[in-house]
Amino acid sequence: MKEIGRVGFMDKPVPRPGPRDAVVRTTTALICTSDSHTVQGGIGPRTDLTLGHEGVGVVHEVGEEVRDFRPGDRVLVGAITPDWGDLACQDGHPSQSGGPLGGFKFANSKDGVFAEFFHVNEADANMAKIPDGVPDETAVYCSDMLSTGFMGAENGDIPIGGAVAVLAQGPVGLMATAGARLRGAGLVIGVESVPRRKRLARDFGADEIVDFSAEDVVEGVLRLTGGQGVDTAIEALGADATFQTAIKIIKPGGTVSNTGYYGQGEFVRIPRVEWGVGMAEKKITTGLCPGGRLRMERLLRVLEGGRVDPTPLTTHTFRFEEMERAFEVSDKKLDDVVKVMITFQR
Amino acid sequence: MKEIGRVGFMDKPVPRPGPRDAVVRTTTALICTSDSHTVQGGIGPRTDLTLGHEGVGVVHEVGEEVRDFRPGDRVLVGAITPDWGDLACQDGHPSQSGGPLGGFKFANSKDGVFAEFFHVNEADANMAKIPDGVPDETAVYCSDMLSTGFMGAENGDIPIGGAVAVLAQGPVGLMATAGARLRGAGLVIGVESVPRRKRLARDFGADEIVDFSAEDVVEGVLRLTGGQGVDTAIEALGADATFQTAIKIIKPGGTVSNTGYYGQGEFVRIPRVEWGVGMAEKKITTGLCPGGRLRMERLLRVLEGGRVDPTPLTTHTFRFEEMERAFEVSDKKLDDVVKVMITFQR
Amino acid sequence: MKEIGRVGFMDKPVPRPGPRDAVVRTTTALICTSDSHTVQGGIGPRTDLTLGHEGVGVVHEVGEEVRDFRPGDRVLVGAITPDWGDLACQDGHPSQSGGPLGGFKFANSKDGVFAEFFHVNEADANMAKIPDGVPDETAVYCSDMLSTGFMGAENGDIPIGGAVAVLAQGPVGLMATAGARLRGAGLVIGVESVPRRKRLARDFGADEIVDFSAEDVVEGVLRLTGGQGVDTAIEALGADATFQTAIKIIKPGGTVSNTGYYGQGEFVRIPRVEWGVGMAEKKITTGLCPGGRLRMERLLRVLEGGRVDPTPLTTHTFRFEEMERAFEVSDKKLDDVVKVMITFQR
Amino acid sequence: MKEIGRVGFMDKPVPRPGPRDAVVRTTTALICTSDSHTVQGGIGPRTDLTLGHEGVGVVHEVGEEVRDFRPGDRVLVGAITPDWGDLACQDGHPSQSGGPLGGFKFANSKDGVFAEFFHVNEADANMAKIPDGVPDETAVYCSDMLSTGFMGAENGDIPIGGAVAVLAQGPVGLMATAGARLRGAGLVIGVESVPRRKRLARDFGADEIVDFSAEDVVEGVLRLTGGQGVDTAIEALGADATFQTAIKIIKPGGTVSNTGYYGQGEFVRIPRVEWGVGMAEKKITTGLCPGGRLRMERLLRVLEGGRVDPTPLTTHTFRFEEMERAFEVSDKKLDDVVKVMITFQR
Repeated sequence: MKEIGRVGFMDKPVPRPGPRDAVVRTTTALICTSDSHTVQGGIGPRTDLTLGHEGVGVVHEVGEEVRDFRPGDRVLVGAITPDWGDLACQDGHPSQSGGPLGGFKFANSKDGVFAEFFHVNEADANMAKIPDGVPDETAVYCSDMLSTGFMGAENGDIPIGGAVAVLAQGPVGLMATAGARLRGAGLVIGVESVPRRKRLARDFGADEIVDFSAEDVVEGVLRLTGGQGVDTAIEALGADATFQTAIKIIKPGGTVSNTGYYGQGEFVRIPRVEWGVGMAEKKITTGLCPGGRLRMERLLRVLEGGRVDPTPLTTHTFRFEEMERAFEVSDKKLDDVVKVMITFQR
Repeated sequence: MKEIGRVGFMDKPVPRPGPRDAVVRTTTALICTSDSHTVQGGIGPRTDLTLGHEGVGVVHEVGEEVRDFRPGDRVLVGAITPDWGDLACQDGHPSQSGGPLGGFKFANSKDGVFAEFFHVNEADANMAKIPDGVPDETAVYCSDMLSTGFMGAENGDIPIGGAVAVLAQGPVGLMATAGARLRGAGLVIGVESVPRRKRLARDFGADEIVDFSAEDVVEGVLRLTGGQGVDTAIEALGADATFQTAIKIIKPGGTVSNTGYYGQGEFVRIPRVEWGVGMAEKKITTGLCPGGRLRMERLLRVLEGGRVDPTPLTTHTFRFEEMERAFEVSDKKLDDVVKVMITFQR
Repeated sequence: MKEIGRVGFMDKPVPRPGPRDAVVRTTTALICTSDSHTVQGGIGPRTDLTLGHEGVGVVHEVGEEVRDFRPGDRVLVGAITPDWGDLACQDGHPSQSGGPLGGFKFANSKDGVFAEFFHVNEADANMAKIPDGVPDETAVYCSDMLSTGFMGAENGDIPIGGAVAVLAQGPVGLMATAGARLRGAGLVIGVESVPRRKRLARDFGADEIVDFSAEDVVEGVLRLTGGQGVDTAIEALGADATFQTAIKIIKPGGTVSNTGYYGQGEFVRIPRVEWGVGMAEKKITTGLCPGGRLRMERLLRVLEGGRVDPTPLTTHTFRFEEMERAFEVSDKKLDDVVKVMITFQR
Repeated sequence: MKEIGRVGFMDKPVPRPGPRDAVVRTTTALICTSDSHTVQGGIGPRTDLTLGHEGVGVVHEVGEEVRDFRPGDRVLVGAITPDWGDLACQDGHPSQSGGPLGGFKFANSKDGVFAEFFHVNEADANMAKIPDGVPDETAVYCSDMLSTGFMGAENGDIPIGGAVAVLAQGPVGLMATAGARLRGAGLVIGVESVPRRKRLARDFGADEIVDFSAEDVVEGVLRLTGGQGVDTAIEALGADATFQTAIKIIKPGGTVSNTGYYGQGEFVRIPRVEWGVGMAEKKITTGLCPGGRLRMERLLRVLEGGRVDPTPLTTHTFRFEEMERAFEVSDKKLDDVVKVMITFQR
């Protein structure tokens, strides 16, 4: 990203690690819709910023205080790389270290992973070794998609056998669907209209689909839950209308768990009456993709144990040299794209 | 309440208890602003409905299956009297038994406590004996004011030494202020402009006051917290603007705990950017006054142990016969009223 | 059970329901090892007590206040049938209503389900309709085995991708294994030595087996977790030695979740040093099988959604008339028994 | 401490800070009974180790990467100084960073605070500025006594109006008593026999005292709770017998929150029957003094807001030069000692 609205290749020096940091040679990365938001100015002006926050690779160099990693290690790095001493971490909110959303550094406050090499702060705390049985093309999904999607399920406080609706089955929504299954939901309802995404939703664990182009979502969810509503609604789109639907379809005492990024408008609006005029014990939780080595190690264990296979999300793969075409596919949602993978020369 | 907008005295027969119920002879009651809302049609049309949900008295008659209470017992009854077998209770949300806000029966789905006698469902589960050391005039505050106000603090997940703001220092807000102290808050900021309520706020434990008529509340709270914001904001008014302020003044990872009843508008609005575009881990919880015997026994223990004395809230006392004048004072907020007490002949 | 150590058939009148109760005609039941404990005097002397607490059937008669069930409904009843108005329920512990373990009524404080008919207190709150797709032989596992086993996982506070060990793979342990998977554990280690149970453990989701007859369990678990220990250990046997192992194999900050019934000895012992001299943040939680309609409905949804199929636990089936032989098989653990099913004439 | 059983003054060089560390000139410190345990070999052999972990002082020197502190700042340092990037921190257990109890570094894995200067790792994350209104003699209590005692209350999950017993009213127990009040307990029972400590217990908020030299503790607690038992028992001694009592006096569903260090015996024993044979939902939690800047800042706010004044704990004060006499008083519990303060030349 050269400036708002303009991208292209640039030459930059290979970064050097500080004493506790590492530099990783990228092997595989994923394009995220938020990369496009950034280019469009979603997080404000940026100049000559390397994009990308979902990447894996091989350790190129480590700082002198790094204990657990060596050059040549195959590693996963979370999209969020907190400063672990920060007060927000001490308060249980590492993704908010250094200010709101402050753990989000790649392609925001520093260069991202769409480059041959990228820099990782606090390497011992923010990288994880990839087990032999897990290929890079699978592991790379942990950095953001699994971490964010599963967070949607975890924050939703799903009881075993509970009913869950996941609103929108994009990559994060699909991983929230998988996450709802991982937490033991008894009924998972995917809300989606795109045929490919509806099929993927079923594959990742949705028991039922409500197609919002064919049916009112509130009616559909009530129909599938005997008029009760769901215990948990996971918002995975980031739109005011979807958020409102989420409030409406949870039962009293239920939870709206937000994973969406709201990019527009002054307000996100709670429908007053369906919120029980503020008294129906309907909770709203939000979160930013959890990062850190422990999180990454646990997600890798989910992959290693064969619980979830995210690779069907990869609908397109391009070489790093084809980046511009890759972005075009992702931006314009061409060709029924779900997720675009970028591979680097090894 | 005879119909929307019209109140007056009526003769009704003394209620009779079902097998597990009780009938209580009222000794003391409190007017709640929600009584006025009801008269104005806030919960829809009602005909010949006895108002009032905050009351204490003496057991007049019990059903044959009631085990723990006898005529003559001095008892407290929660404003909320759940059906304890209901699925919402099994799910941890007794106030939502029988549907959203369904535990709220008095002056809603059945006659209230502004009468010489009132009926209590599931007496063993919904009444509590008042200890000798606690007068009726104190105990009556447990039924709603303490229970709701303290809930605001409890739902707010206040850490010991945490910073809390309580938005509006009406009776519920004042009890939320007391509740924040009870949970160990290190800094309690009361937001209020009325001099009498500002004084009461200090008496109930506010360390600082932000007067919204003299200062921007967001600025005031940031000033008092070194720019950090509070861990918890308790909304105790039920207004869109106040709710927005609450979102703005909590730090990332903080909680807005709502106690307010929102009576107007199609939406309650979340300010998008200050909400961290849905990713700053700012939680929103809501609740309806907890009821039930265990809750009431615990609140009575708070009074018995001298932790809180709610009686300074009583700014006016009327006899039952003076009910119309009492309502006028409460409705029109005459004479700097905080809370109006009604006493019955004993 | 006629008295301690003596069992046999007896004629008793068909029970009649109180106003909120129901009487169920039994179709299918399961023998639990605790039935044998009871016969041996484990819960004290009992005379002419009908045994059995895991049963399903068809509603025979309902009391006049029962709203949601009618004769002919096919129903599941939890092994634990709380008194929902009790203070322990109000405190979030329904299984403890009416005193410690007080929700456990069948074959304890009243007749159990090993009879043509059995009585259910608070039918609307303690029974659940069985969906058409779920046969009685599957549904009956919800009453105790799924509810208790899954509770072991739920109380264990398992993070997604976490490591869990389940100590002993009897019926409850196997359901705890399934439960650990349902909560998203990334690595589930079953501890067991009996070949059939080891195979079942794998089928229900154990990734690894530690055979305590072949290896020290502490060493085995450390080996499989890179020396870290597990996040959660579920004790599913009820033995002092196993409990000690559970403490030893969890990492600092981990949880021992107990499902076992400890029948012997004055003490259950915590190994002091491995417990971190009381400071390693190792938590110990316990529980008694959760009951109630909501729980049963959610467990039925787990079955209906095909998440878990408990029927491989049924190693033996007998007709009600063969009860004595059935008990013999269960008591003496003949023929590699796991779970004995009893069928009734329909 | 020169070796096990032998203490004395030693000359050591003034420590130098690493890039993120600080060195503090000690002004005030407190002797902890665990210092005596250490001398007696409680944590194994140590040679030429400076004792002491409760200290405050003035910043002498900071490393180049330290952002928020400068020489001359008056600072509080927690007894526990975690490595914040450690996996245990990422898991929510900072006191266990670097292994079980690994956050406990002072006078354990490095020199302690009984010296003119001491070293602080990760200064920005482990130190807090002392507000002007809080003298060193008050602030020093935050490092361990308030942090550990309050933790006992926090881990105990005390409901507002709940009943709590605190077993032993030594310095930690007294702060647990204060902590139980801070969390809103309605009834706080102190268990103690020493007259001075009984008086202090009342001063710090105990409503009732059970003197174990005059009455059976279980009977006393049941008497004061109408036969119910307490919601929470805080063990603040570290003795097998006291731990057993704690299990016995909690109600089903209650919590034993441990703060005690268990120095003896192979086992700490749970009384099987009173534990509900493993099924009464009696939880056991443990912890090690929480450290870190956020914790310290919050505790300082508790002092600044006048919630608790710990200074009555200081029964004796000695100058640093009188250290040997100070230790003698503390070790031999001379002269009704509660807490011994050490002052340093300024």
